[in-house]
Amino acid sequence: MEELRTFVLYDIVEDKTRASIADVCLDFGLVRVQYSAFAGMLNRNKREELFLRLRDTLGDEVGKILVQPVCEKDVVQMLLHENDKPPEEDV
Amino acid sequence: MEELRTFVLYDIVEDKTRASIADVCLDFGLVRVQYSAFAGMLNRNKREELFLRLRDTLGDEVGKILVQPVCEKDVVQMLLHENDKPPEEDV
Repeated sequence: MEELRTFVLYDIVEDKTRASIADVCLDFGLVRVQYSAFAGMLNRNKREELFLRLRDTLGDEVGKILVQPVCEKDVVQMLLHENDKPPEEDV
Repeated sequence: MEELRTFVLYDIVEDKTRASIADVCLDFGLVRVQYSAFAGMLNRNKREELFLRLRDTLGDEVGKILVQPVCEKDVVQMLLHENDKPPEEDV
């Protein structure tokens, strides 16, 4: 089954639940790309399994979870810019 | 030129700059989909113009900006779950 780069974005109010959501993403082999966003390669079954796990983890709490697959043709069009922390402040 | 649903994700440390980044996204007709994520239809030229504006807006400050187009075939595979605030707390 074809694997697609999959983005998981979330807004979760509760810190503990937000941390649990991140743990689920890590369990599925995703890597953190932003403070509240993960990405990694998943096939359709794994995406749906992940989505159900994330929904269960959120439970009744306030929040939003978005799982978006992106095909290779689109991934190569990604535009990315990052300014790191200056090294002297990175302590 | 083909328009694709385009996601803008960002991590910006400074509140004022983060607000300016959101304003640029709104200027380009995007809508907020998460606390630090916008989405909307843009063609390739507009995506690149937006990316340059966002990069200029960030300037030398610490932060990360990701602009990711997603074709229709992938958009229909998006999985989305949201729990709203209970109405009695929404004051």
